[in-house]
Amino acid sequence: MNDPRLAPLTTPCLLLDEGKMKRNIDRLAKHAAQLGVAMRPHLKTAKCVEVARHVLAGGTGPATVSTLAEAEVFAAAGINDIVYAVGIGLSKLERVLDLHRAGCRLTVLLDSVPQARAVAEASRAAGIAIPAMIEIDSDGHRSGLSANDPELIEVGRILHEEGAELSGVLCHAGQSYGAVGREAQAESAEVERLAVVTAAAALREAGLPCPIVSVGSTPTAHAAKDLSGVTELRAGVYVFFDLVMAGIDVCRVDDLALSVLTTVIGHQAKQGWVMVDAGWMAMSRDRGTAGQAVDQGYGLVCDEAGNPLEDLIVIQTSQEHGTIAVRPGSGAAMPDIPVGMRLRILPNHACATAAQHQRYHVLPEQAGAPLMVWERFGGW
Amino acid sequence: MNDPRLAPLTTPCLLLDEGKMKRNIDRLAKHAAQLGVAMRPHLKTAKCVEVARHVLAGGTGPATVSTLAEAEVFAAAGINDIVYAVGIGLSKLERVLDLHRAGCRLTVLLDSVPQARAVAEASRAAGIAIPAMIEIDSDGHRSGLSANDPELIEVGRILHEEGAELSGVLCHAGQSYGAVGREAQAESAEVERLAVVTAAAALREAGLPCPIVSVGSTPTAHAAKDLSGVTELRAGVYVFFDLVMAGIDVCRVDDLALSVLTTVIGHQAKQGWVMVDAGWMAMSRDRGTAGQAVDQGYGLVCDEAGNPLEDLIVIQTSQEHGTIAVRPGSGAAMPDIPVGMRLRILPNHACATAAQHQRYHVLPEQAGAPLMVWERFGGW
Repeated sequence: MNDPRLAPLTTPCLLLDEGKMKRNIDRLAKHAAQLGVAMRPHLKTAKCVEVARHVLAGGTGPATVSTLAEAEVFAAAGINDIVYAVGIGLSKLERVLDLHRAGCRLTVLLDSVPQARAVAEASRAAGIAIPAMIEIDSDGHRSGLSANDPELIEVGRILHEEGAELSGVLCHAGQSYGAVGREAQAESAEVERLAVVTAAAALREAGLPCPIVSVGSTPTAHAAKDLSGVTELRAGVYVFFDLVMAGIDVCRVDDLALSVLTTVIGHQAKQGWVMVDAGWMAMSRDRGTAGQAVDQGYGLVCDEAGNPLEDLIVIQTSQEHGTIAVRPGSGAAMPDIPVGMRLRILPNHACATAAQHQRYHVLPEQAGAPLMVWERFGGW
Repeated sequence: MNDPRLAPLTTPCLLLDEGKMKRNIDRLAKHAAQLGVAMRPHLKTAKCVEVARHVLAGGTGPATVSTLAEAEVFAAAGINDIVYAVGIGLSKLERVLDLHRAGCRLTVLLDSVPQARAVAEASRAAGIAIPAMIEIDSDGHRSGLSANDPELIEVGRILHEEGAELSGVLCHAGQSYGAVGREAQAESAEVERLAVVTAAAALREAGLPCPIVSVGSTPTAHAAKDLSGVTELRAGVYVFFDLVMAGIDVCRVDDLALSVLTTVIGHQAKQGWVMVDAGWMAMSRDRGTAGQAVDQGYGLVCDEAGNPLEDLIVIQTSQEHGTIAVRPGSGAAMPDIPVGMRLRILPNHACATAAQHQRYHVLPEQAGAPLMVWERFGGW
């Protein structure tokens, strides 16, 4: 039976299940409370003020962002304690200062002497001590200094002594996305914790402050068993979850709060294909499950109500075409899916799929209540 | 020497070289004129009124789009002959009729009896004969009927006799993106041509009209040697070109009109990495060169002026991080690229990368003239 609330929607469009989102938020909030650390949720997946209000339980922070555009929108919405968790570009410091002048405590991230010097110099010139955290690398994934790199102390000293504010250390165990199962993720979490705690100790031993000790990725945040020495936990995609997270057992497929509503526009019967109007423009080009035990193609197909159809995936996309087929090797039969029927597709990667859309069509937690529309934003 | 016009831009952002764009547009326009066919450029790559004005040489069409949102924006800008080249979703017919009522001749595409019946019924109910083309499949790539499928005549008869307008046949040789070199692409073009010409003959033999015979993809459009029986040629990505097209020799790297401006935000010296602020949010997740002879990662790195740096590519991306390294196996040395330096990245796939951005920062053809800003749009 089709949901009459979905009938007026133009496809493809992005659906958000509010009840699932709230359960996902609650689950990690409880885990963080048990571990005795504060949450600093990452808002880069959501890019939406209404979602941010849910994630922050109505508060004004702490929060994490990945762009200054996010910081500016969320600051305008009253969020006033934000970490911009991408290494600071030197030409962006004027916008950082403008956010401080507008009442938002924006903390920048860096991992080099030239960045520390530029942040200290901009702080002195403006008479505003820009808070800065030093990025620590625990797993060779991306940015950051090793906890035992002598540059760590030098960077800390420049920040602390030359006009900025040394706020602490931050680590993101990006390799945890490849760790399958709770035990492997708990090991990643411990490596992440050890890296920042070691770095914080090194700074303090050198006579430098290190009030914030920040860790987090969605897999490590859920798997961590002990966060001694850590003060705050970051995670982002957990708010919606996705097939990549389900594929490494951080969540179940039933926890996925985001899907793309699509319409059947044709068939290629000889090939066993059903064509839909959700191509890569609606799903993104993300193939994050390609390297997992179960490759979900460009997404897992559900009926319009959101119930997965056994072993049906989007095997191929063009810009505005999705090709649905039975998962190779499964032997499942293709159900009867006529032209005009609507389906939902669960995404590989919530951050990437959501970024392709301008708004969420929200299915409220209260059964039968009218859909809500929550606008997203993009840009830098 | 850095271009002072780029200094005020926030990175990452999208740059468009107007002169290269105009040369790309001219090249295919001349080829189409030599072949004696009209151009119906695809505007799905551009999604921008200013680019459309260049592509259509100031005219009002014909044009091709991939979404009704594109049709609506371009119709509002005065373009009044548009083919919507994605199989029509049955719930979209009211918007199609609204475009006709607003003075835009929008032609829909379909490949099945249920779609033909729905289009005919909507035409009768509205008193507007909706123009419809039948999609023909030449290479098993995606949608469309085979030229010899008996359903072709049935679909044509329903459209012609039950209230719609049978406008012709359309084919897109999507497999041509895998055809390397001019000769292979010319073979694809001939297969594409034969498919639509055969389908048009079958319709005419059954006493049905077939005024428009439409072919096109960027590779086949450039390689076609003879388009006898074809009336119009479609292509889209040729306006900007990209690394995928350069990788199959449709263009040279120097023809690429689109790039992403980015800033260096860090280093991992031991790994040989330079970190920049263009991640997959700025480049897209498209890895279209992964299966080509030369894998360009997430993009080919250039200096700020747009000159490629030998064998430097974006080997890895996160949402807002790009990791630049020497192409594996090349043996080239990593040049000195300090924090704060700006670079440009050439994209794998212009359609996908442009879709991640809200505007083009246009480098005018006239040397030294101020940058222009051309807005893009998205949605469905």
